[in-house]
Amino acid sequence: MSHSVKHAAIPGRLYIIGFGSIGQGVLPLVLKHLDITADRITIITADARGRDEAAHYQVDFQIRPLTRDNHRDILVPLLRKGDFVLNLSVDVSSLALVELCQEAGAFYLDTCIEPWVGGYTDPSLSPSLRSNYALREAALELKTRYPGGPTAVLTHGANPGLVSHFMKQALLNIAQDNGLDVAVPTTRDGWARLAQRLNIKTVHVAERDTQVADRPRERGEFVNTWSIDGFVSEGCQPAELGWGTHERHFPVDGQHHDFGSQAAIFLNRPGISTKVRTWTPMEGPFHGFLVTHNEAISIADYFTARNEDGSVAYRPTCHYAYHPCDDAITSIHEFVGKGYVQQERQRLLMTEIVDGIDELGVLLCGHEKGAYWYGSQLTVAEARELVPYNNATSLQVCATVLGGMVWALENPTQGPVEADEVSFERVMEIATPYLGPVVGVYTDWSPLDGRETLFPEDLDRDDAWQFKNVRVC
Amino acid sequence: MSHSVKHAAIPGRLYIIGFGSIGQGVLPLVLKHLDITADRITIITADARGRDEAAHYQVDFQIRPLTRDNHRDILVPLLRKGDFVLNLSVDVSSLALVELCQEAGAFYLDTCIEPWVGGYTDPSLSPSLRSNYALREAALELKTRYPGGPTAVLTHGANPGLVSHFMKQALLNIAQDNGLDVAVPTTRDGWARLAQRLNIKTVHVAERDTQVADRPRERGEFVNTWSIDGFVSEGCQPAELGWGTHERHFPVDGQHHDFGSQAAIFLNRPGISTKVRTWTPMEGPFHGFLVTHNEAISIADYFTARNEDGSVAYRPTCHYAYHPCDDAITSIHEFVGKGYVQQERQRLLMTEIVDGIDELGVLLCGHEKGAYWYGSQLTVAEARELVPYNNATSLQVCATVLGGMVWALENPTQGPVEADEVSFERVMEIATPYLGPVVGVYTDWSPLDGRETLFPEDLDRDDAWQFKNVRVC
Repeated sequence: MSHSVKHAAIPGRLYIIGFGSIGQGVLPLVLKHLDITADRITIITADARGRDEAAHYQVDFQIRPLTRDNHRDILVPLLRKGDFVLNLSVDVSSLALVELCQEAGAFYLDTCIEPWVGGYTDPSLSPSLRSNYALREAALELKTRYPGGPTAVLTHGANPGLVSHFMKQALLNIAQDNGLDVAVPTTRDGWARLAQRLNIKTVHVAERDTQVADRPRERGEFVNTWSIDGFVSEGCQPAELGWGTHERHFPVDGQHHDFGSQAAIFLNRPGISTKVRTWTPMEGPFHGFLVTHNEAISIADYFTARNEDGSVAYRPTCHYAYHPCDDAITSIHEFVGKGYVQQERQRLLMTEIVDGIDELGVLLCGHEKGAYWYGSQLTVAEARELVPYNNATSLQVCATVLGGMVWALENPTQGPVEADEVSFERVMEIATPYLGPVVGVYTDWSPLDGRETLFPEDLDRDDAWQFKNVRVC
Repeated sequence: MSHSVKHAAIPGRLYIIGFGSIGQGVLPLVLKHLDITADRITIITADARGRDEAAHYQVDFQIRPLTRDNHRDILVPLLRKGDFVLNLSVDVSSLALVELCQEAGAFYLDTCIEPWVGGYTDPSLSPSLRSNYALREAALELKTRYPGGPTAVLTHGANPGLVSHFMKQALLNIAQDNGLDVAVPTTRDGWARLAQRLNIKTVHVAERDTQVADRPRERGEFVNTWSIDGFVSEGCQPAELGWGTHERHFPVDGQHHDFGSQAAIFLNRPGISTKVRTWTPMEGPFHGFLVTHNEAISIADYFTARNEDGSVAYRPTCHYAYHPCDDAITSIHEFVGKGYVQQERQRLLMTEIVDGIDELGVLLCGHEKGAYWYGSQLTVAEARELVPYNNATSLQVCATVLGGMVWALENPTQGPVEADEVSFERVMEIATPYLGPVVGVYTDWSPLDGRETLFPEDLDRDDAWQFKNVRVC
């Protein structure tokens, strides 16, 4: 595939809301692969970050922080049918913008379901209502209100987003490697039956970011390879996981929601201090953080097989298992150690990164061959060579944003959709050139490896893939 | 005090067993402050580390790893009455060397009670028998066998060691600051009564090491400011703590020993993955690791006040709360994440450190003014200026080793003693010039600060200093 193909055209204007690391990383991709000129793009953002880049590309750059009170006043006069709103902000409600877009006939895409400022950590809300589960249920409600509306792609970055597509390809690969003659499913139920047939008990979104900068983190500084406010916000939400039908030990701090799909549960604690055992091909075994993410819920829900009476026959457990860059590990240790009080200084690593890989994929566990990881092993060097203003982490997001935009433009009347409802083949086709090596690797690793060598532990030895074995206590 | 005073004379030869960071750091201090010439010193060590320094000082340097099988063959022919054995090794049994020294009439000092190789992590031993409690009980047994023998100072580094002396000075300071007219206690019981009178419920050995190097940790590398093997070994022992009389929630994974003083309990898990909340003046609140240390047990035991019938009237909880340098935080995360399989590469930070402080002291909690930290805030820059071949961490150890050697030479027939039995005034007098600022600071911090802001927690709100509040779950 040529890197300069124009995949699709935006009929109207493009509004990029928020211009942090993802906005800055996606702009060159948009200009390269979508039929739109710089004079038809407007950036509306809350601060000056990225101003130089916008100037470089001669794109309109407006510092106008959107709030619950002003967003309609600012956006309604701007939006026309055929425009595209790309929401890459923090603290701007995804659902409010989706509604605006539905009303205006504009396309929409975001990389997570964001609430208005403070929504993730509003102590007046119960943990259940501060969850991604609750945000997703509100988004699903929008689906029912706007069937056939302009396509609004929800949660379509790397994860959530790309990993839903990895999941489908991984299922097909495992089926093929087990000699099963499987056609590509064409329905949600078909995908769920395939996962059930392969006996996928648990799905980890297993990520190891090894990117490292040329100078060490200082005390009082939160360092990360992508939005620090975004990471801290989601890290302070309850740890959430899709809750599989094979699970037989409900966590002592676990809780069901009293509304919605019931595809997921939450733990009564922040994800940023909740660790799980996982595995990626390059890193091998490691501990990741069970930070809540939309895909943990949407994948568990999408791949739910039901009996004729509607009851659940099969559902995988699904959760994020995230090892951010080492500087973020010590940032988290400091942040949590000070009672979840955020450091005053932030450093988002971009040009100062000297080495590293963002290894991001899905680990499908419980099938005949043990576990199978499928994903991207993008180095920072390759990311920079491919697209300016990127590191490995941002480019995995940005390539998927591009893929989702193309799919939306090609399928313009789908209304609000989740990543799992978007064509995995089309997105992978567009994104793969920007993902570095995309590999599938089997492993006999399990969370029971090396346990109880020195101390007794509470384990379920009969089923390695019970969450109680995966969780780090 | 002049820095070049000769405090005491070693009558015979000095044998330094092990020549890692502490051996290398202490040699210049010994040559400066003890009456001994380089030709009367022999280093017996397991590898080539420090060979250049030994050559610089023209000290005999022998690579002869001591083992259970060969140590008598090597040492018995060497040792004479009046010699001094300074055991700064790993994997060489402290108790075996103490016995040899008692037989030979030689002085002895070490910085922890070390077992033969593998003793910390021998899976054929129960956690109770792999504990420092068990090692200490064996050491106490030696006391009864060699009363009046040549002085053998056990566990006399920074911690264990120096912090026992900080503890006594801190008690006197708190008494004075509360307007109590208290004479310096002269007996163990007198000290325990003072701690009881001041209502010291909990003692943290609270340490924050901020030393940082000029290049980041690499994957597969354990980085620390002192012996990596030493830290990993003790980190894999059970978490241990002196168990105070005010505690009313026994840990679910806690266990009493079925022998010995009963001053301490252990948790059925490694200290290197067990975190506690603590506080130091420069750092403020942070999470430290509850790594087992001899002082957690010896301080709790020493400061136990008893009723007339011998039953325990008062005992403080005591444990280590250690925040190693940031590179060690990620080293630990990697090590634990790989199932306690040690990295193949090690980097002991010495010359490459560019900045940082080792803030090491005792935090006495529960008294009228809340909590009081007393300790050393030594910077790496000052450490280097004071003594070559040191960083901040090593010099706190080495200065205390020197102090203990002087006290032993001045009190030559005490037999085996713990740090708590050594004169705190004399050791502080010798060590303080090498400790940077030694400060006492009150704080109203408590482990209940900022709790339950977003999630429910299992707390004891009636007594902040319950271990259940301190522990991080």
